[in-house]
Amino acid sequence: MRLDLNADVGESFGPWTVGDDAAVLGVVTSANVACGFHAGDPVALRTTCTYAAERGVVVGAQVGYRDLAGFGRRFIDMHPDELTADVIYQLGALSAMALVSGTRVAYVKPHGALYNAIVHHEAQAQAVVDAIVAVDPSLPVLGLPGSVVLERATAAGLRAVPEAFADRAYTPEGQLVPRSEPGAVLHDAAAVAARVVRLAHDGVVTAVDGSTVQVRAESVCIHGDTPGAVAMAQAVRAALEASGVELRSFAG
Amino acid sequence: MRLDLNADVGESFGPWTVGDDAAVLGVVTSANVACGFHAGDPVALRTTCTYAAERGVVVGAQVGYRDLAGFGRRFIDMHPDELTADVIYQLGALSAMALVSGTRVAYVKPHGALYNAIVHHEAQAQAVVDAIVAVDPSLPVLGLPGSVVLERATAAGLRAVPEAFADRAYTPEGQLVPRSEPGAVLHDAAAVAARVVRLAHDGVVTAVDGSTVQVRAESVCIHGDTPGAVAMAQAVRAALEASGVELRSFAG
Amino acid sequence: MRLDLNADVGESFGPWTVGDDAAVLGVVTSANVACGFHAGDPVALRTTCTYAAERGVVVGAQVGYRDLAGFGRRFIDMHPDELTADVIYQLGALSAMALVSGTRVAYVKPHGALYNAIVHHEAQAQAVVDAIVAVDPSLPVLGLPGSVVLERATAAGLRAVPEAFADRAYTPEGQLVPRSEPGAVLHDAAAVAARVVRLAHDGVVTAVDGSTVQVRAESVCIHGDTPGAVAMAQAVRAALEASGVELRSFAG
Amino acid sequence: MRLDLNADVGESFGPWTVGDDAAVLGVVTSANVACGFHAGDPVALRTTCTYAAERGVVVGAQVGYRDLAGFGRRFIDMHPDELTADVIYQLGALSAMALVSGTRVAYVKPHGALYNAIVHHEAQAQAVVDAIVAVDPSLPVLGLPGSVVLERATAAGLRAVPEAFADRAYTPEGQLVPRSEPGAVLHDAAAVAARVVRLAHDGVVTAVDGSTVQVRAESVCIHGDTPGAVAMAQAVRAALEASGVELRSFAG
Repeated sequence: MRLDLNADVGESFGPWTVGDDAAVLGVVTSANVACGFHAGDPVALRTTCTYAAERGVVVGAQVGYRDLAGFGRRFIDMHPDELTADVIYQLGALSAMALVSGTRVAYVKPHGALYNAIVHHEAQAQAVVDAIVAVDPSLPVLGLPGSVVLERATAAGLRAVPEAFADRAYTPEGQLVPRSEPGAVLHDAAAVAARVVRLAHDGVVTAVDGSTVQVRAESVCIHGDTPGAVAMAQAVRAALEASGVELRSFAG
Repeated sequence: MRLDLNADVGESFGPWTVGDDAAVLGVVTSANVACGFHAGDPVALRTTCTYAAERGVVVGAQVGYRDLAGFGRRFIDMHPDELTADVIYQLGALSAMALVSGTRVAYVKPHGALYNAIVHHEAQAQAVVDAIVAVDPSLPVLGLPGSVVLERATAAGLRAVPEAFADRAYTPEGQLVPRSEPGAVLHDAAAVAARVVRLAHDGVVTAVDGSTVQVRAESVCIHGDTPGAVAMAQAVRAALEASGVELRSFAG
Repeated sequence: MRLDLNADVGESFGPWTVGDDAAVLGVVTSANVACGFHAGDPVALRTTCTYAAERGVVVGAQVGYRDLAGFGRRFIDMHPDELTADVIYQLGALSAMALVSGTRVAYVKPHGALYNAIVHHEAQAQAVVDAIVAVDPSLPVLGLPGSVVLERATAAGLRAVPEAFADRAYTPEGQLVPRSEPGAVLHDAAAVAARVVRLAHDGVVTAVDGSTVQVRAESVCIHGDTPGAVAMAQAVRAALEASGVELRSFAG
Repeated sequence: MRLDLNADVGESFGPWTVGDDAAVLGVVTSANVACGFHAGDPVALRTTCTYAAERGVVVGAQVGYRDLAGFGRRFIDMHPDELTADVIYQLGALSAMALVSGTRVAYVKPHGALYNAIVHHEAQAQAVVDAIVAVDPSLPVLGLPGSVVLERATAAGLRAVPEAFADRAYTPEGQLVPRSEPGAVLHDAAAVAARVVRLAHDGVVTAVDGSTVQVRAESVCIHGDTPGAVAMAQAVRAALEASGVELRSFAG
């Protein structure tokens, strides 16, 4: 039994910091590093890649919309050719930063509104896949199980890696409960840790209605942008290790 | 006898175009492609790299200050670590774009105010050199003969390539006449072409006082951002070819 | 009989120019000046406002999404509070620039993807209206007849000013033919001029099926971003004047 | 006896926060609100202006260089006409935001590298003064005693307001000890509070060599971007009030 833990890092910009990258990189096995379009200035990217290299954490490119003011959390209805070019640019920029820091970009995880859009948006999903195929078809794509982007990635010969969310509730159909609904986000660290352990061992979680639902996941996404989030992440890791799960990046 | 002609391209951004890249890429042997910080959005970079690849023009990275509104023409007194990280980021971004377009980044030419600053500014010159050494020490640096950046490049084991300016007057000491002085910029295409031919054959130009001065140059910079500039560039190339000079990139 | 002609100006940015503002300001009676978020740096805004003031052309605020790379032509799914704040900010910035240039902001016309979004998008339409009400409820809003934004503007006590498009074909229902359909954009300057004259006198245009359709418009939008566009705009103005229509801004 | 306390606020951007504006606005009498070029997105500006209005804190425009990545802390060698236009734009934007929030911009304090540059840089100092004169010559300028910008402000008919720095050491000549020297920044809250009380009562501080030096100041700048800074600011205010100094904005 093995599992990967991934989290977003490298999202500071200029004087502004977000999250505690050093703490997060002590927990995860895969680090989704921002690429400068929604967050992450070059100095921040270099610092984060260096931390990741030192700790043996695998680096992924957290590509996003060009929208600093919105942190990449606002859907932008852009032409697929623009999106493909934007993703190529970001992959190249982060790759250089990873290389000079003693590591390399080993996978791609789209960020924020782009992540959500390409669950369904066919043209944008294909645009992201096209960029990865053009730059390096050996790069896996991390995304939501059943999403269009993972389908397109598979069809294009890329490795599609499904992920689960540690602190999110699931419907009986195995979908995420929308954030707008009560109970969508779980806050009890011990309960979250127990869910992830069960997922690692049995491939299932308890859905909101109490039923048991299968969730396909080679990686579990955790958060590190608040003190409570870091503590939860540490609890998840400790519980996994205690239960005998090997923590290793899917892209290692 | 051989010579390289270089010019700036890829400087369009969003809806805004500058220069006639297609015409310029029909003249030069080396193309200084913007990298997105002072100019050049990802779609423009991709289009320009593709043109360059199709025409066999060698691509260089025209790195600059992060200053779209100022087009990289305003000195920014930034920390060397910030500048190094900014240059690494730009080199990586353009490298990816070049690779997906069927070519590669083969040299570096700093742009605008950065170009001028690192003629004298030791910390920024070193910062640029540090970035290139970290990313790819096989990349030559194109710059002004006698500049600090070329000295530092040589000291770091990089190849330093001096360039001349086709349409600029020189002092008897072989320096560029400052733009603020009358006669600093030459406008007669035939006269400019004749100067470049003499430079290619004899390594000298006629200075503003009528004396003959040696100018070390493996490449000559021409412009392409106005109709008149393109015509002058074409005249320079035609005259060089007619005189038996082989046009080939220093980085080919 | 009177009519207003409006066009977009002030859309240059840094070294990049777009359109021939001097020529356009010689034709129109209302100038939609960009506000810096999708186009228009402060120097460009000042220059354009000064031209407009000298020619007696009324200035309107052409507010847009914060998206230079996309020129405001890409829908951004932003929170209404963000959009309201962005519009307030842009109105204030352009107002100061207009005042120091000897004129003032006299109306608002949303730009590009924002213009199109708020034909239907209720939350964003209301967000724009909220911004105008907060800054200056005496400012009219220029928009598409029947659009949600004009309805909301009226409901909020703002003056809603419907406009027509000189070079666009209309359906028998009085809607614009989508740009994706053949014949959506008219290219014959004389024919366009004749249509606008008929609109000014009779309030009707000939629809794509040959029928006559009523179009409510207190202003007609023309373009100035290509040489052909300027010539068409001049033809429209000349034809209106020859037919006895008084050209005057709706916000004069 | 009266004194003004000023501090920087409104410097958050998108998802990134800096400082505790609510706490700072409970201490100061004048708030230097960022204007969006070096920090401060429109939502943050609106929130901060609303807080300031509710607490009766006077709002000033903290204008800066267009440099988000550098937080306005890097000198940019820009043309005075560009700087004037940038300052006009920022003043207008913040003015609108202040007005919709129930207050108004009552003074100007340049930020960061611009603040430091115009202590000596004549062309940029004049450019800032020109902008203020054009927008509203009733606005005072807050700056360093003896700086070129305050001289130029006075010459242009503006009110020039000198300020002191609560936590900075002074030379026997009344200049700030450069940050690069040991002891330049004071960290003991009680000592700092005592210095400001003495300054308020007697117009003097103890210099680094133990001598007493006169410091002209109508306002004292404090910081609020760390927990320790807020505590020091509160100590300064408490000490001033206990000693009978009336705290009131110079621009109230």
